[in-house]
Amino acid sequence: MTHQGTLGVAVIGTGRMGADHVRRINEVISGARVAAVVDVDAERAKAVAQGVDGCTAHTDPAAALASDDVDAVLIASPGPAHEATLLAAFAHDLPVLCEKPLTPDAASALRVLEAEQRLGRRRVQVGFMRRYDAEYLRLKALLDSRELGRPLMLHNRHRNASSPPWFTSAMLINDSVVHEMDVTRWLLGQEITAVTVLRPVPSGNAPEGLEDPQLVLFETDGGVIVDTEINVNCGFGYQVQAEVVCERGTARIGDGHTMVTNAAGRWGGTIAQDFVERFADAYDREVQAWVDATRRGEVTGPSVWDGYAAAAVCEAGVRAQREGTRITVDLIARPALYH
Amino acid sequence: MTHQGTLGVAVIGTGRMGADHVRRINEVISGARVAAVVDVDAERAKAVAQGVDGCTAHTDPAAALASDDVDAVLIASPGPAHEATLLAAFAHDLPVLCEKPLTPDAASALRVLEAEQRLGRRRVQVGFMRRYDAEYLRLKALLDSRELGRPLMLHNRHRNASSPPWFTSAMLINDSVVHEMDVTRWLLGQEITAVTVLRPVPSGNAPEGLEDPQLVLFETDGGVIVDTEINVNCGFGYQVQAEVVCERGTARIGDGHTMVTNAAGRWGGTIAQDFVERFADAYDREVQAWVDATRRGEVTGPSVWDGYAAAAVCEAGVRAQREGTRITVDLIARPALYH
Amino acid sequence: MTHQGTLGVAVIGTGRMGADHVRRINEVISGARVAAVVDVDAERAKAVAQGVDGCTAHTDPAAALASDDVDAVLIASPGPAHEATLLAAFAHDLPVLCEKPLTPDAASALRVLEAEQRLGRRRVQVGFMRRYDAEYLRLKALLDSRELGRPLMLHNRHRNASSPPWFTSAMLINDSVVHEMDVTRWLLGQEITAVTVLRPVPSGNAPEGLEDPQLVLFETDGGVIVDTEINVNCGFGYQVQAEVVCERGTARIGDGHTMVTNAAGRWGGTIAQDFVERFADAYDREVQAWVDATRRGEVTGPSVWDGYAAAAVCEAGVRAQREGTRITVDLIARPALYH
Amino acid sequence: MTHQGTLGVAVIGTGRMGADHVRRINEVISGARVAAVVDVDAERAKAVAQGVDGCTAHTDPAAALASDDVDAVLIASPGPAHEATLLAAFAHDLPVLCEKPLTPDAASALRVLEAEQRLGRRRVQVGFMRRYDAEYLRLKALLDSRELGRPLMLHNRHRNASSPPWFTSAMLINDSVVHEMDVTRWLLGQEITAVTVLRPVPSGNAPEGLEDPQLVLFETDGGVIVDTEINVNCGFGYQVQAEVVCERGTARIGDGHTMVTNAAGRWGGTIAQDFVERFADAYDREVQAWVDATRRGEVTGPSVWDGYAAAAVCEAGVRAQREGTRITVDLIARPALYH
Repeated sequence: MTHQGTLGVAVIGTGRMGADHVRRINEVISGARVAAVVDVDAERAKAVAQGVDGCTAHTDPAAALASDDVDAVLIASPGPAHEATLLAAFAHDLPVLCEKPLTPDAASALRVLEAEQRLGRRRVQVGFMRRYDAEYLRLKALLDSRELGRPLMLHNRHRNASSPPWFTSAMLINDSVVHEMDVTRWLLGQEITAVTVLRPVPSGNAPEGLEDPQLVLFETDGGVIVDTEINVNCGFGYQVQAEVVCERGTARIGDGHTMVTNAAGRWGGTIAQDFVERFADAYDREVQAWVDATRRGEVTGPSVWDGYAAAAVCEAGVRAQREGTRITVDLIARPALYH
Repeated sequence: MTHQGTLGVAVIGTGRMGADHVRRINEVISGARVAAVVDVDAERAKAVAQGVDGCTAHTDPAAALASDDVDAVLIASPGPAHEATLLAAFAHDLPVLCEKPLTPDAASALRVLEAEQRLGRRRVQVGFMRRYDAEYLRLKALLDSRELGRPLMLHNRHRNASSPPWFTSAMLINDSVVHEMDVTRWLLGQEITAVTVLRPVPSGNAPEGLEDPQLVLFETDGGVIVDTEINVNCGFGYQVQAEVVCERGTARIGDGHTMVTNAAGRWGGTIAQDFVERFADAYDREVQAWVDATRRGEVTGPSVWDGYAAAAVCEAGVRAQREGTRITVDLIARPALYH
Repeated sequence: MTHQGTLGVAVIGTGRMGADHVRRINEVISGARVAAVVDVDAERAKAVAQGVDGCTAHTDPAAALASDDVDAVLIASPGPAHEATLLAAFAHDLPVLCEKPLTPDAASALRVLEAEQRLGRRRVQVGFMRRYDAEYLRLKALLDSRELGRPLMLHNRHRNASSPPWFTSAMLINDSVVHEMDVTRWLLGQEITAVTVLRPVPSGNAPEGLEDPQLVLFETDGGVIVDTEINVNCGFGYQVQAEVVCERGTARIGDGHTMVTNAAGRWGGTIAQDFVERFADAYDREVQAWVDATRRGEVTGPSVWDGYAAAAVCEAGVRAQREGTRITVDLIARPALYH
Repeated sequence: MTHQGTLGVAVIGTGRMGADHVRRINEVISGARVAAVVDVDAERAKAVAQGVDGCTAHTDPAAALASDDVDAVLIASPGPAHEATLLAAFAHDLPVLCEKPLTPDAASALRVLEAEQRLGRRRVQVGFMRRYDAEYLRLKALLDSRELGRPLMLHNRHRNASSPPWFTSAMLINDSVVHEMDVTRWLLGQEITAVTVLRPVPSGNAPEGLEDPQLVLFETDGGVIVDTEINVNCGFGYQVQAEVVCERGTARIGDGHTMVTNAAGRWGGTIAQDFVERFADAYDREVQAWVDATRRGEVTGPSVWDGYAAAAVCEAGVRAQREGTRITVDLIARPALYH
């Protein structure tokens, strides 16, 4: 049971995001393994490494990046630590997935930009993960198709049930609206040229001192006007919506997970054209569940009993269809193995 | 780059489903690899095997199952071939994921059931993959919670855009409604005790001789009435819907991918409570995309330029917020590396 | 203040439905007035008549029908009394709107049918009011257009929050499903040729002895299969849904008051094409509210203050648009008259 | 056939809106009749008056307002003519329904305001008819209930399929956004204190010179931020949406005619609680249709044949229910009268 070519990843930072990425690489995705973990907290690094075959634990990113076993770096440490790790990865010529923000300010981001240019090739992917969301991908595809004409406006809603106690008004921009900044740039393929922020009376549910919600306006170099409601104490859940207004129609995502368009006198969405499209995720989950259970020595899914019952009901169904009447189904008693 | 403990899978049958499973094991899921492929068509088997590191090609399942490299079997061959392969897998004490149907009729399914009982432990998972669909899982969780009371009725819709030329009325039951049979049994935890089939005038879009659509009625040993519209030439797409009617409310899935309930004077759905729930798939896809690109020596996702631009707009945003006015954003010229 | 040609209506029965029709004729619709009311309870008849200009009260329909002031009859008495009143109306050659059921059984309905035929012209409209519901009308128009091809199946849901204590299983058919019978016949333009009723385990919320819910199946002379869930103790409200399955698509009404179609790879609904269509009801309600308030000597709607404020904001808006900046609005102090 | 107390209305202006109001008063609403029509075009006034019993035609509002037969005035002439007619109505002490705008600018509106104050009582209702729309009324009721807490933001969308050739950028404000101005003031019970207008690149579908769409921002004296997308060449239809963001949830109207709220972890809407609520409009339309047909000497609705067929199917249904089997329905041949 060995496999050539699996990517050895060093995960830098094992906090909430880092630990989740370790789990993801181990248990969900294909083609990679966690070769090293790094955390300033040596105990936490060790604890995470222990659960992973062949994974080493470090407190210093440099040590991990120097390992022969490391082919790539995933940075999930706090933002101020990103620049040093990125430069170290460049020194080792390692590809990087860097959680957002790239760095905490424009000056340091510019230094990383210049360093990567000196390398002469791109090595870094920034963790703006909305670009991989199925809904945003559909919206992007629709925009790129120009089916609805050029985009003119973009309305965003970004709502959290409640904000943590240490959240500040500046973090509304830097931690939350930063996603809409990237979404705006990516969906439209345009740069943002001006920002305005409007503040209504703060919600009584916002912590003292936090001006929440706000309406953030972007103008782009393509002449699109973008408004974003940032509302981090909305009380009812986490909700991300985007509606693009184009010349011939609009498209909205984020209402219960399907894209709705307005165009040509009709509102609505598309219907999948076959089961492969509709149930792609189910097939993936099914085979993953089977592999996971099998590796644990278990059987967890539909059983032979389920297969037998289906066969017996099918036989009754075909008879009912042929004879035009009600047909009863007689199963054998359910064996103990299937209780 | 090696990894201990990866499950070596023999994939039996490399038609549409089999080939898709080979791709899935190779590129999507974690913890398994394709160790062998089997097809009566030796050329096809060889072609599939060639793309996979360390994968052997066979025309006889027996040869594949005997290999030391094979830890588990995925059966995706035609239904009539299933029984022999299942029994062979039992002989080698190998775990099996068997595409539906388990076998083509109740008598042969019963023989497999008896064989597995003789083994004394469960080895087979049947490929009823709707049990792994996110929507069905939510519906099942809601039913199991008894939040809406006991189930009384289940309304299913199963629609295909069009049927292949060789589709027969019996296949409406055996190939299509078989999914609703399993869904009924699994969702309700009840066995089906009687079947009735009602046939309206056939659609003008159905091929000559195919009685399509039909309304198939199940009664269960728990007293639930189940109706299924099977409609394989509906013309507009692939659509699977299910509405369970319980004592205190109903829940429906399949309308644009979100579950809608009727209860306590309101219709609607739930809102995700945090970004981990909302964007779980996006995170998985993001890291998979990064690993895949990295293994190909590419960088495809958001770039350092994107990270820099976000940082610059954030700075403008925080100033706009603080100063209550419009702030322009000044980016450096976009370097060639990021064009 | 007089008006020629207003229809003088005798309302027979002043229970819930009858009293509501009196209010409707008086206050909502145009071109008619209540000339007489009839109830076996003389006090109730008198009480209702008192509120209506020129309306007389009677205990015997015959007296009312003989009045010169009566041009038409609205029957809202209990079903068993309908036949006699209908025949009396025929004798006076008066047009009738008769609440459903026409009569309580087929034999008596047949006698009315024969009597009307002897008149040689139609005089009776039966109160199947779903034919006047905006959603059903849209569904009917879509079906009549044959845009989606011929109808093949019809799925109905008929749900009440709870049933009154005196409700019986037979009333599920006679009082509730009777609406779906008419809807089936009217939507499809076909007669019902056979009925089957399936009964799941009764809901724990149904009163002792009431078999609720049920699944009622119709076959039509056009070969359409119709299923109706009748569910009069669903607990969550009153909900009426209908989905017609046609050869090229389906259309569903009753989910939050808009028709949704599946066709040509898309689900969704139509968008109004102008404000007259979108706000037709608002205009009707506006003018009715103004007339009603004016007749009471009151002014209740948007005031001159509202008109002035809009004018002032418009001026600011046009300046803001022209000058590209934020313009403040300065209103005079709100006069006491408008508090 | 006469009726005391009907309101005699003079309709000033018989263009599109005026003619529609004449029809509405004549045929739809209760309690009023058109006593006089006025238009500078004498022929048009005469043509409209001809269709209405007892209606006189005038070219001068003064003549109409002086008539004994006129109890109230509905002004639907062009905006610049409103002031004079309003003052004339005040002189005759007549109640007025005045189409928006009250007058074309704030100064003239102020003069009307002062004149009404001198009267010492309110006589004018302004035609902001969205206050009578069922959806806006539900939204207003929800806001007034404070169920979702205080309002913080309001997002409006106002879209027309296309604009007439003479439409100007200023009319975007004065003719279109004026509705959102009133909606803002009415829904929130607050005055607007500042306006900002943002203009994206104009749509290629907008006529040369029209800056369409625009984003109009209001600030209110209650600290609410309001944004309105005005988009009069959207291409797909007429669409008016409003979403209020409150402290504990949001509510949106305008997506296919039902209000959707986000609150307490769920999105969705309410379910009607009985048929009176659900089918109120159908009952109104039914009785109006019957009255209209009867006055024309026709019968147009469900017939005795429909009543008989329902009775016959009910009898079969009750038997099917009791006997647990399929029962056929035998109707008599359909008489010629009902073809």
